Amino acid sequence: MIPAELIKQKRNGHLLTKSELKQFIQGYVDSSIPDYQMAALLMAIYFQGMEPDEINSLVEVMIESGDRMDFTHLDKFVADKHSTGGVGDTVSLILGPLMAAANLAIPMLSGRSLGHTGGTLDKLESIPGFNVHLSLPEFSRIVEDIGICMIGQTEDICPADRKMYALRDVSGTIESIPLICGSIMSKKIAEGIQGLVLDVKFGTGAFMKDMEKAIELGNLLKAVGEGFGVKTDIVHSSMNQPLGQYAGIWCEVEEALSCLKGHGPTDTMAVTLELGARMLLQSGSVSSMEEGNTNLVSLIQNGSALSSFYDMVEAQGGNPIKCESPETLNRPQYETMINATRPGIIKSMDTYQIGLATVELGSGRKRSDDVVDPTSGIEFYAKIGDEVQVGSPIFRCFNSDKAKLEQASAILHRSVQIGSQPVSHQLFYTIKGE
Amino acid sequence: MIPAELIKQKRNGHLLTKSELKQFIQGYVDSSIPDYQMAALLMAIYFQGMEPDEINSLVEVMIESGDRMDFTHLDKFVADKHSTGGVGDTVSLILGPLMAAANLAIPMLSGRSLGHTGGTLDKLESIPGFNVHLSLPEFSRIVEDIGICMIGQTEDICPADRKMYALRDVSGTIESIPLICGSIMSKKIAEGIQGLVLDVKFGTGAFMKDMEKAIELGNLLKAVGEGFGVKTDIVHSSMNQPLGQYAGIWCEVEEALSCLKGHGPTDTMAVTLELGARMLLQSGSVSSMEEGNTNLVSLIQNGSALSSFYDMVEAQGGNPIKCESPETLNRPQYETMINATRPGIIKSMDTYQIGLATVELGSGRKRSDDVVDPTSGIEFYAKIGDEVQVGSPIFRCFNSDKAKLEQASAILHRSVQIGSQPVSHQLFYTIKGE
Repeated sequence: MIPAELIKQKRNGHLLTKSELKQFIQGYVDSSIPDYQMAALLMAIYFQGMEPDEINSLVEVMIESGDRMDFTHLDKFVADKHSTGGVGDTVSLILGPLMAAANLAIPMLSGRSLGHTGGTLDKLESIPGFNVHLSLPEFSRIVEDIGICMIGQTEDICPADRKMYALRDVSGTIESIPLICGSIMSKKIAEGIQGLVLDVKFGTGAFMKDMEKAIELGNLLKAVGEGFGVKTDIVHSSMNQPLGQYAGIWCEVEEALSCLKGHGPTDTMAVTLELGARMLLQSGSVSSMEEGNTNLVSLIQNGSALSSFYDMVEAQGGNPIKCESPETLNRPQYETMINATRPGIIKSMDTYQIGLATVELGSGRKRSDDVVDPTSGIEFYAKIGDEVQVGSPIFRCFNSDKAKLEQASAILHRSVQIGSQPVSHQLFYTIKGE
Repeated sequence: MIPAELIKQKRNGHLLTKSELKQFIQGYVDSSIPDYQMAALLMAIYFQGMEPDEINSLVEVMIESGDRMDFTHLDKFVADKHSTGGVGDTVSLILGPLMAAANLAIPMLSGRSLGHTGGTLDKLESIPGFNVHLSLPEFSRIVEDIGICMIGQTEDICPADRKMYALRDVSGTIESIPLICGSIMSKKIAEGIQGLVLDVKFGTGAFMKDMEKAIELGNLLKAVGEGFGVKTDIVHSSMNQPLGQYAGIWCEVEEALSCLKGHGPTDTMAVTLELGARMLLQSGSVSSMEEGNTNLVSLIQNGSALSSFYDMVEAQGGNPIKCESPETLNRPQYETMINATRPGIIKSMDTYQIGLATVELGSGRKRSDDVVDPTSGIEFYAKIGDEVQVGSPIFRCFNSDKAKLEQASAILHRSVQIGSQPVSHQLFYTIKGE
């Protein structure tokens, strides 16, 4: 295989065989194919796309680049969830422990803040002592013992994805449906799961702003998952406004704790229960979404879900007692209010800009070596459809770096449109016939 | 400027400003922007193209990355030619000295074998002692003294092009009209020329196989050249069959010497005179193509052109006396004949495959560190429209590596189609209205 010829083949719109993809990607992992050839291939894939067979081969090759976990010896349904990235989306922190309480096993590999979106690992690390860098055997043992463990991608799982993802981030090739699909599905399938629910976001704060693209991605993810024998369900939830009452680092952990105690915001709980009930349906332990919902609500009400969260914190080196008084941890030094400058009804929110404001505050990274500020975040006082007067609070933003606070606040001032007509916000997009 | 954002901008079809291109390309030259980001940008340009303004900026930025020569103190018209690459195209070796004999100054920066096409520098280096690595002051001095000097691209001229071209070659981004245009025109304009004739090839052995693309490239090259104040003419000559009687290394030098002595093949001489007469017209020394042609033919007949070639050889460290008996130099150890296997009329030649056969023989490179075999080449006994019998010779190929000779011969066997109808070959494509 001559790498430049293979790049030209894709550039000219021809299909790549599994053997060709394997040689190229294996060569990239072992560094015999340099970054620049992979970057050129990724851009050619961005423009020419990939056929379903090629995407399956891509996923297979990426899985085969590393280890594949195996939980078949467990007497539990093994499942996971994934979201395509959001602002204020703390669902993983709630759903993981909740599903463990429902007797599922959840081996969750999570990510860090990316672009304007938050990262589960960054939030978890704001819990004192919490360790997201475990070996695969430690990870497996915790999943087996308590049903949930949340770590970052290791060297052993999909090293091809790890290396390709870092390159896509700096070469302008993130927004490619086949590459997104390859990256998500290879990691998830390598976890050895039987079920998967995917929250493919749409709206102003989603990577796929366009509903058509979000549906296309959802269909593809489902087809790939099922091709690999994984029960796969797609939920499309809105990023036309942030999810929940907070977006940031520690404030999202606090929010997740409120949810696990039964005091969560309606939208965050609705997304969590929608994903969770689908997972229960996949496992066969319930026979309807309603039954799934009821079961999950009672696992929150009876404290099992919260206790499962504390078990996870303890197993991963954190101190659950500290989580019991979250208001004493990660206190911001500065805060500022953003108020309405005209009366009316909130017409739209630019969730992408709000996400950029969280990055500015310190909840995300502009460069891969930036350190996040665990005290940083935004509280939402008003959402789409809410009536406001001049001076009504819309955002409170906070962190421990005054200059960054001012920059974020300037972004937030521009992120909300106030109109005069009543409007409503649709949390889920349901595809006809489902 | 965030490099990944600029890549995305081009990827999404937006224009890049001169300042953006300058920052990106300067960053690439000084290595603050890595190969992988440039490779991604080049592939995005391949797909999205560039507007005329962007191409002008690209050419300007590439020129500004290095030195620009100046021959304005000379009392001569300073000009150059460029071909987009061919098989058996030895025109530069003839035209350079011929134009010097016509009292023009020709500061010619040439290239090496690329893909399936031959390289002027490789041919020149088969002349014992000939040095193509001169400093710019030495180069200028020889141009001033004898009117012609032919060297390779130096570190000082268009370093951006040098680095980008090497990357394009291995990243599948050669075949992009704006990038081809940027690469050619930046180097030529940096030579400080007043006139330029470009042979934009078409046909089976051209980089632009498609006539429409060749015309598009020609128009663009002309517009860019004239935008920079360089008189620019385009000739479209055919690569539907190799040019002349030979393709290879030393055999092409021998062929050039025959041409300079007045015994050249008709097609090679026709292309040489077409380009040369246009250059004379640009210089104002003649008032018609006919007058230009006549002048050039007499400069060959009276020995001035040949003597100009010998002057160049001597000035660049070679021994002109050795060139006087070319049949004693660079003798191949092996040769083999490829004969017709059916009777009929040669219908078509796959010049790309014939070019690959020259590479296989050793006249080109598969990897940038391959060493060429100066003895290697192919002699053409029949061309399109010629009648052949079973056993009639079509090719003689020769080199000093038996295994390679066999591989090349296998390629050549498949490169000719014999039919039964009379056909003709059109050497030039003339655009209507010209």
